[in-house]
Amino acid sequence: MMQIFVSEVAGTAMLTLLGCGVVANVILPKTKGFNSGWVVITFGWGLAVFAGVYIAFASGAHINPAVTFGLLANGSDMVAATDTHAAVPGTLGNVLVYLAGEMIGAFLGAVVVYLTYKKHFDEDAPGATKLAVFSTGPELRSYGWNFLTEVVGTFVLVFVIIHFGKSPSGLGPLAVALLVVGIGMSLGGPTGYAINPARDLGPRIAHAVLPIRGKGSSDWGYSWVPVAGPIVGGVLAGVAGLAMPTL
Amino acid sequence: MMQIFVSEVAGTAMLTLLGCGVVANVILPKTKGFNSGWVVITFGWGLAVFAGVYIAFASGAHINPAVTFGLLANGSDMVAATDTHAAVPGTLGNVLVYLAGEMIGAFLGAVVVYLTYKKHFDEDAPGATKLAVFSTGPELRSYGWNFLTEVVGTFVLVFVIIHFGKSPSGLGPLAVALLVVGIGMSLGGPTGYAINPARDLGPRIAHAVLPIRGKGSSDWGYSWVPVAGPIVGGVLAGVAGLAMPTL
Amino acid sequence: MMQIFVSEVAGTAMLTLLGCGVVANVILPKTKGFNSGWVVITFGWGLAVFAGVYIAFASGAHINPAVTFGLLANGSDMVAATDTHAAVPGTLGNVLVYLAGEMIGAFLGAVVVYLTYKKHFDEDAPGATKLAVFSTGPELRSYGWNFLTEVVGTFVLVFVIIHFGKSPSGLGPLAVALLVVGIGMSLGGPTGYAINPARDLGPRIAHAVLPIRGKGSSDWGYSWVPVAGPIVGGVLAGVAGLAMPTL
Amino acid sequence: MMQIFVSEVAGTAMLTLLGCGVVANVILPKTKGFNSGWVVITFGWGLAVFAGVYIAFASGAHINPAVTFGLLANGSDMVAATDTHAAVPGTLGNVLVYLAGEMIGAFLGAVVVYLTYKKHFDEDAPGATKLAVFSTGPELRSYGWNFLTEVVGTFVLVFVIIHFGKSPSGLGPLAVALLVVGIGMSLGGPTGYAINPARDLGPRIAHAVLPIRGKGSSDWGYSWVPVAGPIVGGVLAGVAGLAMPTL
Repeated sequence: MMQIFVSEVAGTAMLTLLGCGVVANVILPKTKGFNSGWVVITFGWGLAVFAGVYIAFASGAHINPAVTFGLLANGSDMVAATDTHAAVPGTLGNVLVYLAGEMIGAFLGAVVVYLTYKKHFDEDAPGATKLAVFSTGPELRSYGWNFLTEVVGTFVLVFVIIHFGKSPSGLGPLAVALLVVGIGMSLGGPTGYAINPARDLGPRIAHAVLPIRGKGSSDWGYSWVPVAGPIVGGVLAGVAGLAMPTL
Repeated sequence: MMQIFVSEVAGTAMLTLLGCGVVANVILPKTKGFNSGWVVITFGWGLAVFAGVYIAFASGAHINPAVTFGLLANGSDMVAATDTHAAVPGTLGNVLVYLAGEMIGAFLGAVVVYLTYKKHFDEDAPGATKLAVFSTGPELRSYGWNFLTEVVGTFVLVFVIIHFGKSPSGLGPLAVALLVVGIGMSLGGPTGYAINPARDLGPRIAHAVLPIRGKGSSDWGYSWVPVAGPIVGGVLAGVAGLAMPTL
Repeated sequence: MMQIFVSEVAGTAMLTLLGCGVVANVILPKTKGFNSGWVVITFGWGLAVFAGVYIAFASGAHINPAVTFGLLANGSDMVAATDTHAAVPGTLGNVLVYLAGEMIGAFLGAVVVYLTYKKHFDEDAPGATKLAVFSTGPELRSYGWNFLTEVVGTFVLVFVIIHFGKSPSGLGPLAVALLVVGIGMSLGGPTGYAINPARDLGPRIAHAVLPIRGKGSSDWGYSWVPVAGPIVGGVLAGVAGLAMPTL
Repeated sequence: MMQIFVSEVAGTAMLTLLGCGVVANVILPKTKGFNSGWVVITFGWGLAVFAGVYIAFASGAHINPAVTFGLLANGSDMVAATDTHAAVPGTLGNVLVYLAGEMIGAFLGAVVVYLTYKKHFDEDAPGATKLAVFSTGPELRSYGWNFLTEVVGTFVLVFVIIHFGKSPSGLGPLAVALLVVGIGMSLGGPTGYAINPARDLGPRIAHAVLPIRGKGSSDWGYSWVPVAGPIVGGVLAGVAGLAMPTL
């Protein structure tokens, strides 16, 4: 259990370090990657998943509560993109260890992003820009439709992950990374694709507690959408996966 | 047969969900990915194929009538990018199941794109822009040359797919995905590379029936080009593949 | 021998079809990919190599005289990125078959690009732009330095290809494709990285003979640079490869 | 020992040839890739690592003193992304051979970049631009924070590399390449991600000694940051790697 916890903390910290990091690079003032666009955001987040999955390999590399709940709904054991270790059954205790590791890791990774980009956070920028480094927000606010968008994006994530184990491609962490690039490019337009409750809520808490210069609201009114949407999407994918043909 | 049908419906729905989704993100107003350009369009479609091939793995992952007809012309059984399951012979019944699954899946995926980007479809934009999320259209209209362009693009797709099975690269779905990225970058300039009748016609029907705000024509006059061109290209590739040297 | 010839013709045609195609898409007027930049050019050419290597797999996938000469200088048999077939010795006859296949294929692929983008070639554009779809040209003309740049780029190509066979990565055609993307990004700035005599000379002949509307000079004065530079670079790499440590 | 030296010289030369080369292409005047942005810079550097790792495969492909020190701190033998050859123990003699090879190779690669882009270095451009082809510099100068940024980036590099050997992905050089793309996109914003003392110091010495037209200062005041930061980050990662769970 301790191994699962350490593995998920480290992997999810790596995820938000590189993931929130790429947003910092693209939107904070005076960075090398300023304004380099959606292609950098989406590849950056995909490669954040890539690194995180390697780090958390020993625990099956969930690094995302929607994956944890999706595997649970699918009746799988707690193993996602990898397949070479002992089965971890989906007991309540194990699930709580996964969720705690994911949340704490996501928070820690965001703190390191703040330190890494400290001088750029000290520059003048709108509070909404500084928040966007940490957490997602919709372009057109409409809780119902935003929620649906997060459900769809996370459904795709978990549904395809469940299928990875059914085909012999051998790409491992790269397959998950590319899938996340694809979801970002295709379904990230309305809400910025949280598709992971920990990735959004952990950094939002970091935003709330860190002494960021000129920070504005942490937008708690929206914060439930990127938590509830991904959980619903993940569970639906786990259930839908049961109906799919196998070889 | 039911397994083939479900597999092709799900895989082709995944294809148009992510594929039409990336177009929505790049061209609809007020999205995160607005105006992010051809590199995002082409990688987005390639990764849509990537996800779709994983989902439809159990049926050989055609998700494209041009592949179905190409394999038929090649005398292959109905297996494309994958090679580990029982042979499915190219009988009339099997072919019809593939085609029906592909068309229905392509339609369904486009409907989900509409829901995912609902608030952005509600914004003001030209009717041609909203149609372009669903279906392809030429930059310079000339049915003969547009047809030829689709023949060439689909020829490349099916011709190379036939060769995947002849080399031991082991990339599986990634190889098809990268091939589609390459075709889009290189041959997608004139017509937007349908290279798949279902990908174009299914979403066009969705465009016609969905209550999209301020939608214009579904451009039925052009609709035969991205159906006939890919079928001809796929069949030519299947035949040409017979003339190629093998190891 | 006939198998080698057909394989190299088809593979090199695929190379210039997708390679010259991506240039057409990025620089000809009114294309979908107009002005989409160097990232599309370089990935497009890399994926052109990717497809070409699959097609020409049976002959070892040279599709480039610089590779043919480099392997000859290295004392290798005529097999490059692949390793699962019978050895083809580097006799004069075999070398001539490779060179003929490469040149004819490169010419044919460029002809198909012209047909695919016919309506865009009919638009007004400078003659130099239309030539650039077919063949490379330097940004700052200086035959000596341009020659050196082509030597360096091709040295990298052939030197790394020789090393692929010495490491167990199993990426096959993808490794060559990514290498070409990297060379284009890093060393393509001064001359547009021909790094392949057939890729430059074959399409230049196509430019000279095709009835392209408003075409200008085929720039024969420069044409020896992207032929001689790559041959010298390839041979140097083949020789240098002999000095490298092996496992 | 001589084999290690030759292998690391060649691999690190390939690294800075392609790595400094992509910067030259993006920032020097009148190149094909001028102003093509952060996505080209980051993929170009990643693919530079890709090529360098293949070339230096026989010596475990460090091509980076931070990797050498990180493996030492981790108690690993001197093997990084590869796993099929004889163990090389981390003796003082071996470490010095690695460091010497890395520094000399990095210097040589930068010299070849100068020659390859000679005509573009002869054009008018600010001295800082010409230096930036060779070595990194911060956007907001603050030695403490810049140092921290380099520590974090290199920690990620070495920490994930250590984990590659613990998961069966089989991507080899591609995994390292993608990791470096990700670090550049996500953590390269403040300082330009040296994350490798040799990559920064070797080319800086080349800048100092080469007769570059209109070159300015080599900025020796900053030069310790991209040396010390990566060493500290690499050592921390090596130590932290010891605390991670294994399968």
